[in-house]
Amino acid sequence: MIKTTFLGTSGSAPTAERGLPSVAIECNGGLYLFDCGEGTQRQVMKYSVNLSRLKAIFLSHIHGDHSIGIAGVVRTLALNRRTAPLEIYVPKGEIDAISQLLKFDRVMLGYKITVKPIKTGVIFKGREFKVSAFRLIHSIGAYGFVFQADDRLHFIKQKAEAAGLKGAMFSKLQERGKMTINGKQVRLSSVTTREAGTKIVYSTDTRPSKEIIAASKGADLMICESTYANSEQRLAVERKHSTAEEAAMMARKSKAKRLIITHISTRYKNPSTLLSEAKCIFGNTELASDGLAISI
Amino acid sequence: MIKTTFLGTSGSAPTAERGLPSVAIECNGGLYLFDCGEGTQRQVMKYSVNLSRLKAIFLSHIHGDHSIGIAGVVRTLALNRRTAPLEIYVPKGEIDAISQLLKFDRVMLGYKITVKPIKTGVIFKGREFKVSAFRLIHSIGAYGFVFQADDRLHFIKQKAEAAGLKGAMFSKLQERGKMTINGKQVRLSSVTTREAGTKIVYSTDTRPSKEIIAASKGADLMICESTYANSEQRLAVERKHSTAEEAAMMARKSKAKRLIITHISTRYKNPSTLLSEAKCIFGNTELASDGLAISI
Repeated sequence: MIKTTFLGTSGSAPTAERGLPSVAIECNGGLYLFDCGEGTQRQVMKYSVNLSRLKAIFLSHIHGDHSIGIAGVVRTLALNRRTAPLEIYVPKGEIDAISQLLKFDRVMLGYKITVKPIKTGVIFKGREFKVSAFRLIHSIGAYGFVFQADDRLHFIKQKAEAAGLKGAMFSKLQERGKMTINGKQVRLSSVTTREAGTKIVYSTDTRPSKEIIAASKGADLMICESTYANSEQRLAVERKHSTAEEAAMMARKSKAKRLIITHISTRYKNPSTLLSEAKCIFGNTELASDGLAISI
Repeated sequence: MIKTTFLGTSGSAPTAERGLPSVAIECNGGLYLFDCGEGTQRQVMKYSVNLSRLKAIFLSHIHGDHSIGIAGVVRTLALNRRTAPLEIYVPKGEIDAISQLLKFDRVMLGYKITVKPIKTGVIFKGREFKVSAFRLIHSIGAYGFVFQADDRLHFIKQKAEAAGLKGAMFSKLQERGKMTINGKQVRLSSVTTREAGTKIVYSTDTRPSKEIIAASKGADLMICESTYANSEQRLAVERKHSTAEEAAMMARKSKAKRLIITHISTRYKNPSTLLSEAKCIFGNTELASDGLAISI
């Protein structure tokens, strides 16, 4: 099971109800943060996400509202006597800026932090999943992320028995792809069905793009920034953000199963307009709120 | 009236209940922040402190838990189209570190921020008050602050009338200190009584010291870090912090009127022990909580 928790759902500045952007994905005992706005280390407490399991942080871009929280997160992990290494992925060209932020007060952290550059394609391989990145269109270099769980194989009982599979053979066949049993070659694909792994796509901050649609193809969960309502379309263009309707258009074109709109401008005290504008285009849309948790 | 609001009362790391250190003082329409831990820009919303009135931030030292919040505060002020300048006071030698933190993501702020060095003595003069600084004893250069409102003069009606004071003469005499009325010299001090201005002292992070006691002499409000209970006295010494009892000892020696203990270690879920240990020494002690507001 993969659990996605929205830790902060506001855009640019926080409100009393919405913290700054961060999405936590918990998978196979590890925690992965996508963006890390100010206050993330407190939001994880509030929403029962176990920070000690943090393996990697992926920053879409270095604007402060998406990144400042790493400074507090790494310090609190140090206070908690972390020894495990931590990886932080940032757009190429921002490694120095983020490294500076991590050590600005000269506090010794006592564990290894590696700041790595994001390039398009697969950037991280975890236990039974991988994370890949794709370019976004913002005022500075920004990336979206695809969290893709590995496909799951299910043995077809009848076919496996007929092929003579038993005991340790199942795992051996899974490892090797094919093997010989009683003089006959057995292919993994001939005795299994394949269940597609969960796909979660996170894209903010950005104008709508073909890259987002392509990356989100068939996603189980598509998380899109929707900073503005249609009435502020001009601002969305000017500031390189998206409207809720634009996010919904992309969800429809990518045939995503479910859309969550987030990164809501502070101007909307009650963003029901954004939700209804998106729902007109893509019915299965939900409005993110801090603490919203989705298990797939 | 001077209003003091505790925006964050935890030590080193936040908890679900306590944010990172920051104390807001509102006086004559201006807002002054003493320390600015992560999340301060959200705490001001929660506790109805008007950030747009911010005039200056005073950082006791640059450890992240006391300073990271400035990055978000200055960005949100920029989003709100601030044009007024802002002053940030930091211990001498830390100007570069804080300046770096302010601009790490290269976002243009659009208003002038001056980072100024703290020295002992008066560092800021506001409308009818001044802020002075004194050295603390911590693992890096740190300062405590005295917020001292100007004394208030009250004319003694009978004496003022006898001296012939009327109309604009009152403000003229206040300005000049003395003046001649009907051929006679009148001194301000002979026709007025002087009411001492409110004194608020903020000291964290630190070991107890004579300097704190001296600076806090007769304070109306003494705000002291009390990271630990007596049982963790060893840690207090080792990490250059104070126990609640040590804070109370200083309050007693300085003859402060009221002590608020804050910067509570995250190990104390219910810090009633700290409060009772302090109260044994100094009866008028209160335990700070986020949102506690005191008007004097």
